[in-house]
Amino acid sequence: MKKIDKSILTKTIRIRPKNSFKGTYGKIALVGGNENFGGAIIMSSLGAVYSGAGLTTTITDPTNQSSLHAWLPEAMFADYNDTDQMVQLIKSMKVITIGSGLGTDDHSCEIMETVFDTVTPDQILLIDGSAITMVAERGLKLPDAKLIFTPHQMEWQRLSGIKMADQTEERNKAARDKIGGIVVLKSDRTEVYTPDEVYQNTTGTPAQATGGMGDTLAGIIGGFVAQFDNEVDAVLAAVYSHSAIADELANTQYVVLPHQISKRLPQFMHEHEA
Amino acid sequence: MKKIDKSILTKTIRIRPKNSFKGTYGKIALVGGNENFGGAIIMSSLGAVYSGAGLTTTITDPTNQSSLHAWLPEAMFADYNDTDQMVQLIKSMKVITIGSGLGTDDHSCEIMETVFDTVTPDQILLIDGSAITMVAERGLKLPDAKLIFTPHQMEWQRLSGIKMADQTEERNKAARDKIGGIVVLKSDRTEVYTPDEVYQNTTGTPAQATGGMGDTLAGIIGGFVAQFDNEVDAVLAAVYSHSAIADELANTQYVVLPHQISKRLPQFMHEHEA
Amino acid sequence: MKKIDKSILTKTIRIRPKNSFKGTYGKIALVGGNENFGGAIIMSSLGAVYSGAGLTTTITDPTNQSSLHAWLPEAMFADYNDTDQMVQLIKSMKVITIGSGLGTDDHSCEIMETVFDTVTPDQILLIDGSAITMVAERGLKLPDAKLIFTPHQMEWQRLSGIKMADQTEERNKAARDKIGGIVVLKSDRTEVYTPDEVYQNTTGTPAQATGGMGDTLAGIIGGFVAQFDNEVDAVLAAVYSHSAIADELANTQYVVLPHQISKRLPQFMHEHEA
Amino acid sequence: MKKIDKSILTKTIRIRPKNSFKGTYGKIALVGGNENFGGAIIMSSLGAVYSGAGLTTTITDPTNQSSLHAWLPEAMFADYNDTDQMVQLIKSMKVITIGSGLGTDDHSCEIMETVFDTVTPDQILLIDGSAITMVAERGLKLPDAKLIFTPHQMEWQRLSGIKMADQTEERNKAARDKIGGIVVLKSDRTEVYTPDEVYQNTTGTPAQATGGMGDTLAGIIGGFVAQFDNEVDAVLAAVYSHSAIADELANTQYVVLPHQISKRLPQFMHEHEA
Repeated sequence: MKKIDKSILTKTIRIRPKNSFKGTYGKIALVGGNENFGGAIIMSSLGAVYSGAGLTTTITDPTNQSSLHAWLPEAMFADYNDTDQMVQLIKSMKVITIGSGLGTDDHSCEIMETVFDTVTPDQILLIDGSAITMVAERGLKLPDAKLIFTPHQMEWQRLSGIKMADQTEERNKAARDKIGGIVVLKSDRTEVYTPDEVYQNTTGTPAQATGGMGDTLAGIIGGFVAQFDNEVDAVLAAVYSHSAIADELANTQYVVLPHQISKRLPQFMHEHEA
Repeated sequence: MKKIDKSILTKTIRIRPKNSFKGTYGKIALVGGNENFGGAIIMSSLGAVYSGAGLTTTITDPTNQSSLHAWLPEAMFADYNDTDQMVQLIKSMKVITIGSGLGTDDHSCEIMETVFDTVTPDQILLIDGSAITMVAERGLKLPDAKLIFTPHQMEWQRLSGIKMADQTEERNKAARDKIGGIVVLKSDRTEVYTPDEVYQNTTGTPAQATGGMGDTLAGIIGGFVAQFDNEVDAVLAAVYSHSAIADELANTQYVVLPHQISKRLPQFMHEHEA
Repeated sequence: MKKIDKSILTKTIRIRPKNSFKGTYGKIALVGGNENFGGAIIMSSLGAVYSGAGLTTTITDPTNQSSLHAWLPEAMFADYNDTDQMVQLIKSMKVITIGSGLGTDDHSCEIMETVFDTVTPDQILLIDGSAITMVAERGLKLPDAKLIFTPHQMEWQRLSGIKMADQTEERNKAARDKIGGIVVLKSDRTEVYTPDEVYQNTTGTPAQATGGMGDTLAGIIGGFVAQFDNEVDAVLAAVYSHSAIADELANTQYVVLPHQISKRLPQFMHEHEA
Repeated sequence: MKKIDKSILTKTIRIRPKNSFKGTYGKIALVGGNENFGGAIIMSSLGAVYSGAGLTTTITDPTNQSSLHAWLPEAMFADYNDTDQMVQLIKSMKVITIGSGLGTDDHSCEIMETVFDTVTPDQILLIDGSAITMVAERGLKLPDAKLIFTPHQMEWQRLSGIKMADQTEERNKAARDKIGGIVVLKSDRTEVYTPDEVYQNTTGTPAQATGGMGDTLAGIIGGFVAQFDNEVDAVLAAVYSHSAIADELANTQYVVLPHQISKRLPQFMHEHEA
């Protein structure tokens, strides 16, 4: 297992070229946030915007419109009940994330199926949280797209069928080979399974053990793959950055709030661009 | 009466173990906040989240959903009118607080009765504010759970039947013995009555004399008992921390806003962990 | 005309006694903020809460509930269309302010009339903004209460009948004697007319020339008279503080945003308490 | 092509005269922000308020009321569906901006046509974003007013008929002569076409390449022309300031969030007033 260390940052976070414009940095849609979990999609959207994605659209329950904009006027809003609009939007994206705060009921599933039916092979689709659970429990067919999964260990158990106690590198690798895509297996030392290699993160702190941390990571990964061409490197750099910032904050804090990580991203990325 | 001093912090606020995860730090639900008092449940929820509770759910009036998330995307939202959902949520919690901004009308009482009917002996139930008043005035039977009461002196008068002028240590102790649980009797020098001992806080400032201070304390106590195993120590450490932070802020402020205390918690707890 | 200088602060802003509680610092209701001018009542409420009023209730249009709490969980909310509730609330107050963002249509006027019909001689009633215009234009009878008016020069013209160009100290004094109460005549050097004396403020900056500055002043005056016994001194200290903070901020800012003044109040008041 | 440099600031940002009041600094209305793009009109409004406009009214979809006030209690709100109110408001303005987040559907177009039918030759009308697209695509007749256009290169292609690759100074100049007004052609080195001269900005950073940057610029230009008499200088100073602040922030940030620029404006303008 390769260690993910600081070198991934300078390798990935490129100094922006002078004549670039917002289109250069990718369009991303984040789909999630039902009436109960609106905060999850807000935190995820903060990760995408503060990492520097070019254009961010949050597709969520309409009850989350005001609080989304109270945090993020930089994100556009769409109602996830307006299927036609959602389909049109998703077609224009480089990256789509689905699952942060989406829930697992039938309505959540319909929304996910619409996304799955719409994405194309050239698009990056990140599947997070309750979307992983629904794929596993409902036996949904995965779409043909550049897939990224961000399960915690219990969600990975559901998706891979490997019980938490049995999640060894070998078994996880085999499961990933079958499922496809990149798997970000979240734990206190997050592992990343790619077609070619397995990586283990070297950053992270128990001060991160609070709700919303994973939603934030999903948004940051989304923002990084929207901007940086090497998809694997982008994922690794996002995983490293998310926990490295937490490590910094934990030097003075007992608990790190997820939104604080996103707000620190612009400085952190500047310190490590090359 | 034992003094609550700084030593309670290092005794209670443990350095988090490396391989811990959000489940380690407890699930808490805060029930309260009607149409008029939404701010109370927001302040209480801030206390829970910023103290480091693992997972926080705020069960409140739907008109408070947007402002809750504008402060706290980290908290999940549930509508307290959706009884089925509320019951399901409460069953899964380690800690439930009820009363911050709940009001005292019939609808408030129904919500409280649902909570009382749902909690089990292994759960911690914190009863605050208007919930104390309703228990007293409506003669409601207390549920079998690990109870914590956080009355101010007038609410304690209602609950215990002891007039404010007559609230001596002996009488309060006797009343607590009859009622059960832990009683946090709020004043400029808050007292804590436990089955074994009576404690008096040594921190606190008149700069705290403003609306919302008690709601914040209820949330911090909730966050501490969610995380720290010794329930009495957790309550004492929360009471001490809440006013110790206010003391610090009052070095430069004429009045201390309740939300400022919660926002300082992660630093304060880091400075005193052991 | 007496100058209002720094000495008014130490004379007025008393060090809080140790065993005081929120009831010591007064209950205040702020009535205003229609669908268009919700920001005005938010700014006014910020002034009241950050000055240290004991308990603050904002009575406003329901469309302002979320944004009020997004700024101020410390303020309670009431719907100004619920007349019974408003009447009950107002009866329990030490101070009521009316007019910030209230508007001047028939509905605004009904709300104002309800307030006028409810207040009693021992209560302080601050009449601001559109409420002054309505009193003047509709010839409403003023209630028997401790009145404070906070007109700008055009509103004073409407109320007093004295044209702006003719607003001399003598004429203003005579008009105040007829109308009663305390008149805070806002300009770049605000004047305060009391039954015994005329005062002129010595602080203030053109960086304050932006919308919402007066709403903020109304809230700060409300917060000061809620806490400090000498009503005239409290008004003078509020007028001085509001512009003195602006002067400080204008050392580094081209324009001073009204909400910034309120947020600085706790520090400023601490620096000048005695 | 003349370079826009620092000297434009001291030439334009005048020290405010002592006895000025909010009316001195202009009334501005910003029209835009449909259900999807509410963040755009919030960012634009932040630019207007933080630059020091005297009185700011945001005319937008009612779903944006709460989030607008959560950012900006200093801005007044009006529902863009209430045509009568909108017409009345616009008549009283010195400056109107239209287009930030307005959208391009029939309803958006009706709102724009109402604005066009209402403005008078003495008023400044800034046409931004989707409003430019609608003028171009629907062949709308421009009203007789002091026009400012703020297209990016694709919008300019639509409006001028000049393809992006062919947008030379000469051709742009000729197109501007035909269309009239001031054209702010946004790119990594924004150009400003006036009746007499062509200017090129010397500030700007790729850290600005993110959604909302243009909405913010529109609001800042609106705020500057509301306050400063020489319209061309005001536009140039706004363009320079917007990117100069971004340059400063980019010294420590990989990406600059649009709202951060507005929040820095009061300090930046103070540093460069004369």
